[in-house]
Amino acid sequence: MMQQLIDSIIQPTFSNDILNQKHDSAVLNVNGSRLAFTTDSYVIKPLFFSGGDIGKLAVCGTLNDLAMSGAKPLYITCSLIIEEGFAIKDLQQILLSMQQTAKQAGVHIVTGDTKVVDKGKGDGLFINTAGIGLIPEEVSIQASSIQTGDHIIINSDLARHGIAIMLEREGIDFENSIQSDCADLSGLVQDMINAGLHPHCMRDLTRGGLASGLIELATASKYHFEINETSLPIQDDVKSACEILGFDPLYIANEGCFVLFVAEADSEKVLNCLHQHELGKQACVIGKVTDKHNKGMVSLETAMGISRVLDLFSGEQLPRIC
Amino acid sequence: MMQQLIDSIIQPTFSNDILNQKHDSAVLNVNGSRLAFTTDSYVIKPLFFSGGDIGKLAVCGTLNDLAMSGAKPLYITCSLIIEEGFAIKDLQQILLSMQQTAKQAGVHIVTGDTKVVDKGKGDGLFINTAGIGLIPEEVSIQASSIQTGDHIIINSDLARHGIAIMLEREGIDFENSIQSDCADLSGLVQDMINAGLHPHCMRDLTRGGLASGLIELATASKYHFEINETSLPIQDDVKSACEILGFDPLYIANEGCFVLFVAEADSEKVLNCLHQHELGKQACVIGKVTDKHNKGMVSLETAMGISRVLDLFSGEQLPRIC
Repeated sequence: MMQQLIDSIIQPTFSNDILNQKHDSAVLNVNGSRLAFTTDSYVIKPLFFSGGDIGKLAVCGTLNDLAMSGAKPLYITCSLIIEEGFAIKDLQQILLSMQQTAKQAGVHIVTGDTKVVDKGKGDGLFINTAGIGLIPEEVSIQASSIQTGDHIIINSDLARHGIAIMLEREGIDFENSIQSDCADLSGLVQDMINAGLHPHCMRDLTRGGLASGLIELATASKYHFEINETSLPIQDDVKSACEILGFDPLYIANEGCFVLFVAEADSEKVLNCLHQHELGKQACVIGKVTDKHNKGMVSLETAMGISRVLDLFSGEQLPRIC
Repeated sequence: MMQQLIDSIIQPTFSNDILNQKHDSAVLNVNGSRLAFTTDSYVIKPLFFSGGDIGKLAVCGTLNDLAMSGAKPLYITCSLIIEEGFAIKDLQQILLSMQQTAKQAGVHIVTGDTKVVDKGKGDGLFINTAGIGLIPEEVSIQASSIQTGDHIIINSDLARHGIAIMLEREGIDFENSIQSDCADLSGLVQDMINAGLHPHCMRDLTRGGLASGLIELATASKYHFEINETSLPIQDDVKSACEILGFDPLYIANEGCFVLFVAEADSEKVLNCLHQHELGKQACVIGKVTDKHNKGMVSLETAMGISRVLDLFSGEQLPRIC
């Protein structure tokens, strides 16, 4: 329904060439420089969760949106909507978390805004972050750069963020606490770009998880993606939690997980580079791009050798996951 | 209390050279270009009011923050937090209003985000906009550029936004409906800059009104501002409404009103330029900068010839005015 709202009302109202590219970041030409510009509001519930909090999430989310366009993040903003009565110590902890995450990424929080709404007219705290980054001349990362034969690489294991939030929200104490994968991917991406490696496209796997991210890119690029189910990294306890809760991990949100598309010839070099970074240790090829059939679709080769087509709307989406 | 929260917790946590300048826009050097970058969240209540709606306000507010740094606004973002059950037709009207305001200003809404929160966890609609603009090489607008002898010029009459909202909220039907002054000031500012006129400083008079804006600049510049009460443009019906409601119009929020500081020698030229624009027809000199005494303070010469010092906290601030 959210996607319908965006597609049927928001997108058509604001329609312009840049917005219509539907990237997480807008890519702008400003005075001869290529800038990435992005924004996200965070309404996650609960505010604190295993592996992070809304502050870390709000900074990482915007850094990751910038990184996915190949930009080096430079500056971010922080706008707070605070519900009357929200605990100052929680606010302090969340702001500190934002500051630490920004500092580690080498970006500054340069401007912001604070609004307070009456009790019962908000939900503790909502945060908006916007960010700008600089895209190097030689970098061109977009769905239309995807080519037949490209390897599809993932950096890390799936579905931890969504499951961590769900367990927290439902008060379920799982045997091994599952931590959100919430992390800033911009350093990892910069390492790749600085090494002269040029992915054709990248996408972080947030709302809607791996399946939704891949389907969007398959639709945009008009290619067919073949994904090998057995190659998908998923922690055993996450698999168990998904089975118990009745979720498909392919549709669960991540906050430190992305796919990239790269020419087969560069695949090994990209993997070697990713493996050297903490957030890329599990990096592996999960599939490839073909133009054989089913253009604009994603098929999953299951462990039993059966191929099934992934559908954008078949998966349950958790509300307020980010 | 809001100012205390910002000064005691938010500002110190994020402290850095750019943020500490406390401009409405951060001024950044990106790849040799001077960019202005700003953000604001809008939680105004009611969403529709005489003279505008939250959509127009959200675009104008960000355009004005950019304009006050001398930037030509280029691109803005739109992030929505929608409460479940919010009427689609209201959303459409608000988005259309954003689009029209952006179009008139010649800027594009290039990226955005949409979140839905459960019923009772929001208040209809909150909007965040962020914006970037380009500051011409020769422009340097900041509190530290204010000089002794500068004329202080206002573009338009005071207190209409705050009073319009208050009347709407209280359901008071005033004899002549008072309209919010909500407007995009960037065109007016661009006209001045294109005419080669260089104000030393500009400030839009939003939350806290004229008094708070001037006091902040007096504190930052360490000069004394003498304001002549009889020169302040205020509509008669706004004056009456202020008297009935018990508000001081000097502390009431505006959304299309700003002050600028300019060398006495350029004052006449600036006034001539402002008078040619619809939003500057009432432009006039309201006071001047001195270094005589009371540094960092603002004094108001009243109609009766008495001088009183304006205090940052003496005025009532309306909640959720923007």
